[in-house]
Amino acid sequence: MTESWATFGADLHLELSAGRGLRAGLTEALREAARSGRLAPGTRLPSSRSLAADLGIARNTVAEAYAELVAEGWLTARQGSGTRVAERARERRSAPAAPVRRPVRARTSYSLFPGTPDLGGFPRAAWLSAARRALTDAPNEAFGYGDPRGRVELREALAGYLARARGVHADPERIVLCSGFAHGVMVLAKLLRARRVREVAVEGYGLDVHRDLLTAAGLRTRPLEVDAAGAHTQSLSPASGAVLLTPAHQFPTGAALTPVRRAAAVDWARSTGGLILEDDYDGEFRYDRQPVGALQGLDPGRVVYLGTASKSLAPGLRMGWMVVPPALLDEVLAAKGRIDWSSSALDQLTLAEFIRSGAYDRHVRGMRLRYRRRRDELVAAVGDRVAVSGIAAGLHAVLDLPPGGERAALRAAAWQDLGLQSLSWFRHPESTAAPREALVVGFGTPTQSAWSATLAALVAALP
Amino acid sequence: MTESWATFGADLHLELSAGRGLRAGLTEALREAARSGRLAPGTRLPSSRSLAADLGIARNTVAEAYAELVAEGWLTARQGSGTRVAERARERRSAPAAPVRRPVRARTSYSLFPGTPDLGGFPRAAWLSAARRALTDAPNEAFGYGDPRGRVELREALAGYLARARGVHADPERIVLCSGFAHGVMVLAKLLRARRVREVAVEGYGLDVHRDLLTAAGLRTRPLEVDAAGAHTQSLSPASGAVLLTPAHQFPTGAALTPVRRAAAVDWARSTGGLILEDDYDGEFRYDRQPVGALQGLDPGRVVYLGTASKSLAPGLRMGWMVVPPALLDEVLAAKGRIDWSSSALDQLTLAEFIRSGAYDRHVRGMRLRYRRRRDELVAAVGDRVAVSGIAAGLHAVLDLPPGGERAALRAAAWQDLGLQSLSWFRHPESTAAPREALVVGFGTPTQSAWSATLAALVAALP
Repeated sequence: MTESWATFGADLHLELSAGRGLRAGLTEALREAARSGRLAPGTRLPSSRSLAADLGIARNTVAEAYAELVAEGWLTARQGSGTRVAERARERRSAPAAPVRRPVRARTSYSLFPGTPDLGGFPRAAWLSAARRALTDAPNEAFGYGDPRGRVELREALAGYLARARGVHADPERIVLCSGFAHGVMVLAKLLRARRVREVAVEGYGLDVHRDLLTAAGLRTRPLEVDAAGAHTQSLSPASGAVLLTPAHQFPTGAALTPVRRAAAVDWARSTGGLILEDDYDGEFRYDRQPVGALQGLDPGRVVYLGTASKSLAPGLRMGWMVVPPALLDEVLAAKGRIDWSSSALDQLTLAEFIRSGAYDRHVRGMRLRYRRRRDELVAAVGDRVAVSGIAAGLHAVLDLPPGGERAALRAAAWQDLGLQSLSWFRHPESTAAPREALVVGFGTPTQSAWSATLAALVAALP
Repeated sequence: MTESWATFGADLHLELSAGRGLRAGLTEALREAARSGRLAPGTRLPSSRSLAADLGIARNTVAEAYAELVAEGWLTARQGSGTRVAERARERRSAPAAPVRRPVRARTSYSLFPGTPDLGGFPRAAWLSAARRALTDAPNEAFGYGDPRGRVELREALAGYLARARGVHADPERIVLCSGFAHGVMVLAKLLRARRVREVAVEGYGLDVHRDLLTAAGLRTRPLEVDAAGAHTQSLSPASGAVLLTPAHQFPTGAALTPVRRAAAVDWARSTGGLILEDDYDGEFRYDRQPVGALQGLDPGRVVYLGTASKSLAPGLRMGWMVVPPALLDEVLAAKGRIDWSSSALDQLTLAEFIRSGAYDRHVRGMRLRYRRRRDELVAAVGDRVAVSGIAAGLHAVLDLPPGGERAALRAAAWQDLGLQSLSWFRHPESTAAPREALVVGFGTPTQSAWSATLAALVAALP
């Protein structure tokens, strides 16, 4: 709702933000008026009583809004001089400040960029109640500088969960929390450099951000070709000191690494002493049958398992975890550094409680149904026009296109304000495989309310 | 509630967890039975219909519990063979698991190690209610991958707070959130290396962790002598590309950088193009008079201001911030990386709300009183035996000792199980100043309930 009020003897249009309480709306409107200079510094505001009467709202509401703005320094309140707009409001305004950007409330455009879950699905209420329990139970030392591996409560909860849900050989002592997958890769890249490794094999299609992290650490990346059976692990070279794989659901092509290829990766690691970095970013989300367990289960001594809450819950949590081979733990901690700058201890305790209470399982199950339904609808909607490749899993699918189709689809999508990414965008620059034209469709990205329109926009953009 | 059921033809006690729904309780009880081996692998479970009848609950409840456990891999369901306990349950159980360590609840010993606030003072209730408001108001996009600078809500709240409380020229656009001071220094060290800086001046007494971060980035550290007027900024060399200072309250000697020395630092920066890194770790806590504003106010174009919630709230939040000169913003963001792995967006929103609502000011005020009282008690308790040096500020004080006194005090403290740190521990290895014997007493570290006994232990340990 938007209301405008004539007040202060001038037409001052105060906009109440939508979806906020009256007091919050009034506070923000006044703050904005002071910030923007519409209320000049020194201006004396009407008494709370008379403004309340003008606006037809409770006097307390106005008084509280005033008090908040005084606390924030936008207004001053002095005995005998009433409530005024503070001088510093002007000072700040007159400083050569860039315009203050308001938080983006919603994107009007559609996005099918892969890599982000449906953020509207974040379980706010359940998370908050887990936070309440965690914060109530937390020992004082939880607020201090902690174990560089992260809170033991979360490592214990994860060990149970990962064993149960992903078949990971996990021990809380060997779990190291980090602030998302990228942080984990950064730590491991540092470790590899300290071991004098020069080259890491990566999948021929993958995220450039991850390749860049390795390159920034001084490591060369060598592409492995990728097909319907996953990465060509049988072509792994002894020159590579490690390999970065997405075995459960190759990103972005969508293949599951076959048992033969899994065995080949482990054989390579055993014979060369190389390390396997397993990126299990969306292992929980498989729709056709039982999730395939993590590769790590095959040889926990040679695989570093990396998981994240970024797809199952939200990237904004900045929460990831590594399950580290016993022999590697000290090196990982040395590379991570003496200070734990992984994630907030409060969030770690909250996630531990969230997992322990079963809320995590419930949430994953709910989202699995949601994504599965979307994938089915995607397949149905595009069915006879393009082929959907990759297994029925995860938050994204690949739509294969005829030659020239990528370009045409991206152009058509841009016209519709639809964010869409081509497969070739993910191609390793040194890949020698024949180029393949396709779209990587992040069907998990839209919120529930935007999904149908987004899908319609996609269908309209297809050649 | 706890129920036990006789079922499966055997006395199998399934415990329903308290406060859970019936289905969740049944699921967990069955999972636990499979995990613990009370239900042997291969055991055929009764049909959902007959178990439901046995338990007097809806058949759907049982069916859903079964389905969940099948999805999780504890049970298998095959046409014609019914629902059975999976084989993998046993495999996992027999794996050689290390004993699970319980979290450490409390330290029985006393600690006066500096660097940690009174963790018992963390405002749990106020934080939680800010979290509730923040989580309720948050737009969906807050849960996504965010601005590499961090959430705009917190940057705006901090800009207001820092201007008001610390005299910092802050603009939300130039605030970059990080996960504590160390993360900020790491980012800045990377930036300095990219600028081909080779040497950074540091205070002759300071934290080795901070020096180590610079050294690890390939930077040499050159010590500046420190006296009662703070660091000898007049001796800054053109060979140093930056200087790391604690102007408000030198850590650990406790001096405040005098106006003359502040001016000298800024003059050096202007004439050499060097950068000042201002570590304002406890600037809020001054007990004798108004806090002195941040050095950054003197020349916002040459000072990177670094602040943290680690002393004012809790290190466990992993929350820090930099206010960056306009010309440096792009370089800082490049060094920080494309992905924001600073801190949790939820905590950022919560802290923003905590500041906006005035709870942060209230908390700081309360802790200021607490610490001030402790410092007074410390001074009174040791008054005639040793001199307390440094300004009346912060969470630590320095007790000067006669020759040989450091060793004797540390030995006596160890006997009493009292954690205590000597001043010489903080001395830069290349410092040429005459050694000084003293203790750095972190009077902020104990909880309220432990304070008196800790102070008594300290007094007993003094020579």
